[in-house]
Amino acid sequence: MDKIKEGDYVLLYFDNRREWLVKASKEKEFHTHKGMVPIREVIGKSYGERIQSALGYDFWLLKPNSSDFLSTFKRLTQVIYPKDAGLIILKLGIGPGKKVIETGTGSGALTALMANLVKPDGHIYTYDMNKRFLNSAKKNIRKLKVDNYITFKNLDAREGFDEKDADAIILDVADPWSVVPHAYESLKGGCSIASFSPTINQVEKTVTALKENGFISMESIETLLREIHVEEGKTRPLSRMISHTGYLTFAKKIFV
Amino acid sequence: MDKIKEGDYVLLYFDNRREWLVKASKEKEFHTHKGMVPIREVIGKSYGERIQSALGYDFWLLKPNSSDFLSTFKRLTQVIYPKDAGLIILKLGIGPGKKVIETGTGSGALTALMANLVKPDGHIYTYDMNKRFLNSAKKNIRKLKVDNYITFKNLDAREGFDEKDADAIILDVADPWSVVPHAYESLKGGCSIASFSPTINQVEKTVTALKENGFISMESIETLLREIHVEEGKTRPLSRMISHTGYLTFAKKIFV
Amino acid sequence: MDKIKEGDYVLLYFDNRREWLVKASKEKEFHTHKGMVPIREVIGKSYGERIQSALGYDFWLLKPNSSDFLSTFKRLTQVIYPKDAGLIILKLGIGPGKKVIETGTGSGALTALMANLVKPDGHIYTYDMNKRFLNSAKKNIRKLKVDNYITFKNLDAREGFDEKDADAIILDVADPWSVVPHAYESLKGGCSIASFSPTINQVEKTVTALKENGFISMESIETLLREIHVEEGKTRPLSRMISHTGYLTFAKKIFV
Amino acid sequence: MDKIKEGDYVLLYFDNRREWLVKASKEKEFHTHKGMVPIREVIGKSYGERIQSALGYDFWLLKPNSSDFLSTFKRLTQVIYPKDAGLIILKLGIGPGKKVIETGTGSGALTALMANLVKPDGHIYTYDMNKRFLNSAKKNIRKLKVDNYITFKNLDAREGFDEKDADAIILDVADPWSVVPHAYESLKGGCSIASFSPTINQVEKTVTALKENGFISMESIETLLREIHVEEGKTRPLSRMISHTGYLTFAKKIFV
Repeated sequence: MDKIKEGDYVLLYFDNRREWLVKASKEKEFHTHKGMVPIREVIGKSYGERIQSALGYDFWLLKPNSSDFLSTFKRLTQVIYPKDAGLIILKLGIGPGKKVIETGTGSGALTALMANLVKPDGHIYTYDMNKRFLNSAKKNIRKLKVDNYITFKNLDAREGFDEKDADAIILDVADPWSVVPHAYESLKGGCSIASFSPTINQVEKTVTALKENGFISMESIETLLREIHVEEGKTRPLSRMISHTGYLTFAKKIFV
Repeated sequence: MDKIKEGDYVLLYFDNRREWLVKASKEKEFHTHKGMVPIREVIGKSYGERIQSALGYDFWLLKPNSSDFLSTFKRLTQVIYPKDAGLIILKLGIGPGKKVIETGTGSGALTALMANLVKPDGHIYTYDMNKRFLNSAKKNIRKLKVDNYITFKNLDAREGFDEKDADAIILDVADPWSVVPHAYESLKGGCSIASFSPTINQVEKTVTALKENGFISMESIETLLREIHVEEGKTRPLSRMISHTGYLTFAKKIFV
Repeated sequence: MDKIKEGDYVLLYFDNRREWLVKASKEKEFHTHKGMVPIREVIGKSYGERIQSALGYDFWLLKPNSSDFLSTFKRLTQVIYPKDAGLIILKLGIGPGKKVIETGTGSGALTALMANLVKPDGHIYTYDMNKRFLNSAKKNIRKLKVDNYITFKNLDAREGFDEKDADAIILDVADPWSVVPHAYESLKGGCSIASFSPTINQVEKTVTALKENGFISMESIETLLREIHVEEGKTRPLSRMISHTGYLTFAKKIFV
Repeated sequence: MDKIKEGDYVLLYFDNRREWLVKASKEKEFHTHKGMVPIREVIGKSYGERIQSALGYDFWLLKPNSSDFLSTFKRLTQVIYPKDAGLIILKLGIGPGKKVIETGTGSGALTALMANLVKPDGHIYTYDMNKRFLNSAKKNIRKLKVDNYITFKNLDAREGFDEKDADAIILDVADPWSVVPHAYESLKGGCSIASFSPTINQVEKTVTALKENGFISMESIETLLREIHVEEGKTRPLSRMISHTGYLTFAKKIFV
């Protein structure tokens, strides 16, 4: 059984609304409404075991998945949701060995998820004009230990990408249409691009740019996620939900 | 630039409703409503290039992603949709090196997607009681060349899994509650299980079984995907959509 | 108990997918896959009773509501759905005594529903440029016996309405923005307008026109209706649904 | 042009999030964040005109629809949403002359909307076991001046309704299945019942009771309403929405 070691991350779980990602450390104490949790005692325990707070409450040591890390990412900008990230990953075929270009880096959430999947031979090249975002993303991503598979670039993608022959390109910028011609240059033939935009007007302009720049197989969609309260005799969808994150547009490059 | 070789798969695209996954082969002809496409001539071309049918129509040679392969899977049973598969993959942390147990195999769609992501050191153990499903899944999966990362088992998961210490377990069976106790035995502490069920009653019983068998951090959701027709001046969601595929339930194992 | 009389309408129900609106008549026979139903025998029976087809199948005599009539309307154009019509009626305060202007008439579905609600002192003035639509709508509406509360006008609303001081105005035309200035002239102060449009671009132009023409309290929405298959142990949403009918925009007139 | 008289209600509008229903009164002042609004000056003005607060801000005098009144209803219990009420009204054929039974009264929202539509010859009989709810509903409804068309009954519907031959019955109680047999007794043949329930388990039990008690043509649905932010170049659905209010079940009575 895996023992938790110094430096490992633990998802400290109290209940569905109170869970925190913490780093196992000999010196650490973690303060919660339910009392101080002695993080140093986590070391040597197994994931799945419990730890008690000073006030006697049980906290559980869960194993964080890459998607659990996302929720701890510092967000200077909108963060992509798993419902959208999962679909981008599948529709673009992100996997071992893939060379991927992304702009903007944003909080680094998608960057980190993809970097974890292209290991050990693939690579993510991520561009963001905003130095502050890029630095924050680097910090966020460090926790997942996938830095080796990422190159961060503080450059404006509207002036082009340095890389060629990417297997996939992801645009999450305010004006994807300005980047589309450069994306075309840097993408392998027959391969896929994805663009994420909150407004329908951005989608229209992006689709127009894709059509004019050698892309086909266009598809624009939105995803919705609805949580269900499950309890025998009381099962019902939760009262509120996220209505909209953004639209996803997918297309593939051809040689016209 | 990658040249298409004998044995490679090509997504032969005519328009959004007419695309086929074909295998490059020296002898092959492919017959469509728009005329015969001489597949032999595909060899040596690049992805992204065009080929003409005997009737003079253009077809495009696109690069299939793992999700493109799914649409060609022979379906003896319901196939998982990318919107659901993507979320399962992220929420369970499926990635390089992971050891994953799945039941049932079904058409093998999720099996194939996961196998591609756990390479080269991870492995998928997939169980299906139905020999016919299992054989059909094997055939489907062969196209993706990920067989080395999958062990197929024609066994009833209600009698337990042979493996221990799985990083993740996925249940897609009619009675997940019968498998939950065995899943507990075979899952690593702190790690995640996912269950996919079409009916709300299955979800209720599954959540009850999870609660009674040492799982916490329960979350039940459904996802919806809506396609948008994008055309300047005429943008609107398509008239019809898939309203329901199934509910997803996630939970994590603790040592109670 | 109400007895069915000659000329009354009956909703002849076999199962959820097979029901028909028929008019009680001494001479009529109604042919179905389950045998001929002797409609003449309906006269003198009560709503809720059964009648047998020549092949011995049971058919039920249900009482049609105004919304049941809609499904029988001949549709030369898109018909409004109850989910949208219900909201228009409430948000515009359609009720006894109201004077309402509508364009276009379309199939007459909303016209009929509203006419039934403004009785006995209110009135619907409905405009449609298309003579064929208008005639078909008249025929459709005749069944509901609300003709006395409707004035049909084969005129182009882009040239203005003849009426003033309407309590509510409904626009269901391809270019609502062209009608907005006239709607302003014909609507009472403080009162509401509704516009129904399938595309987001129409909505944008309509909202702009409303803003520029003395309307406030703008609200644009879409409604979705999802059917649930309910059966103990097998309850789940149906697999498919209508994803989109159109967007509704509401606003109120002010004196600027 | 209608002048606002003492006792009339006015929808005092500042912006989409700040509007209030106020009663025109010679003595009244209305205090807002944007300064005191001299309500006495409203009398003699027309709907659609403006009034200035003491701080010089414009407020608009809009005409409240029945649905605008709802938002001011004191809610001791969940209030029905227009998206659901509109559909109930259409599917049950609520209109002039109809005799309707409802339980529970709740906040009186649906009661008021229906009373307004059955005028002048119809009537609503509304039952609620909870005296406090009933009194609050009466107060709420008084504003709409439809009291003459409503009989309030502080009785438990599980013991039956006093009325017979209702044209429609609406159930909005925790255990509709207990009321279904009584609803059958009180409903006209061939006519419709509607039931509103938040949980799927309630829906299952209700549908079972309907099947066992002489109802057919069962239909269970849920409605969703999504708000769109419309602004040229920035159009998108709002970020959050109500995910769930309740399920609606419709059925019709037969003589078995």
